[in-house]
Amino acid sequence: KGDSNTDLVIDIHNTTSEMGATLIILEADEFHIQMARYVKQQMPEANILVEDEKPYLEHGYLCTTGKKGVMIEVGGQPQGVLREDVYLLTQTMAEAILDFCAAYNKGEISTEALPACEAFQLGDNVSFPLDANGKRTAMIHHSLQDNDFKPLMPGMPMFRTFDGKDIVWDGDTETYPHFINEAAYFKLDVAFATAERITL
Amino acid sequence: KGDSNTDLVIDIHNTTSEMGATLIILEADEFHIQMARYVKQQMPEANILVEDEKPYLEHGYLCTTGKKGVMIEVGGQPQGVLREDVYLLTQTMAEAILDFCAAYNKGEISTEALPACEAFQLGDNVSFPLDANGKRTAMIHHSLQDNDFKPLMPGMPMFRTFDGKDIVWDGDTETYPHFINEAAYFKLDVAFATAERITL
Repeated sequence: KGDSNTDLVIDIHNTTSEMGATLIILEADEFHIQMARYVKQQMPEANILVEDEKPYLEHGYLCTTGKKGVMIEVGGQPQGVLREDVYLLTQTMAEAILDFCAAYNKGEISTEALPACEAFQLGDNVSFPLDANGKRTAMIHHSLQDNDFKPLMPGMPMFRTFDGKDIVWDGDTETYPHFINEAAYFKLDVAFATAERITL
Repeated sequence: KGDSNTDLVIDIHNTTSEMGATLIILEADEFHIQMARYVKQQMPEANILVEDEKPYLEHGYLCTTGKKGVMIEVGGQPQGVLREDVYLLTQTMAEAILDFCAAYNKGEISTEALPACEAFQLGDNVSFPLDANGKRTAMIHHSLQDNDFKPLMPGMPMFRTFDGKDIVWDGDTETYPHFINEAAYFKLDVAFATAERITL
């Protein structure tokens, strides 16, 4: 790591959340911005997620074993299930990334040639509410479930407690939840991640 | 089993298939028919599935340890995820079953008092197509995915092979697939179960 012979690692993931096809980039440098714009142009339904809150090599992600590394995250798909829609979105995004790299290496992608695109900048993890014994006291609210990358406005419900009360988003501004109800994050009590909408 | 002290066992399950709230009964006798009609009246969105292809006690299901036993099957929910919609459907159906039992025991449910209802009679399991080495060669077709208990007509696609061809339903009549893409059945190579629509 940090001295790799591999130019690019694409790490392909699925999620139980309804994130559709999401490209996760770890650096907002010229190469990755151009890649994001290219993918978004080829695949307007894709989401672009920027996780550059720390230097590339400090991430624990498998893809950082490459000189460059990105992730494809597609959902919702339960564990142990193969959905044709999820399979096709994954294939389409992987091919767009490879097409971009081929064009970039040939010098066919000139800076600023591609239109700027919508992206999401990772914020914080939001935990499920827990009682004094560390037991979960609420579920994702049905109005938030499956609404990944949709705006969650201040005052809108995000949890419903097991005794039937709503807990609302108490941020000052809207946020864009994603990884909503991802099974792999349950052991960490993570309910979803927040994001800010940006232009890349 | 067969000599139980427990009057009724309600076995609560979730599935990764989009079966909504489904009541599974193992005998189409007067008690269970009345229960099915009562549940359907209280909960019109519920599906009723009849699995009486063999005698009650010959089923391997946990619920057959009771004098009577039924199953609640609710989906789609990935493993390790709690969805509020699935939770509420399960609670509503369990309460309807208990309300029915209380009314039945008080003699408040007279035979034929409840309107007949739509139900589905279990048919066969349909396997994923496999190659000569037992490896799967196709996925559930995207047009079948999430369409549990919807009619699948002769000639409609049910699988798409990994090399892009469609495999169609070759039955003589329509069927009502359910347990479509249930993760727990993957190790058995079961793609879905068929059913016939009946009136109960």
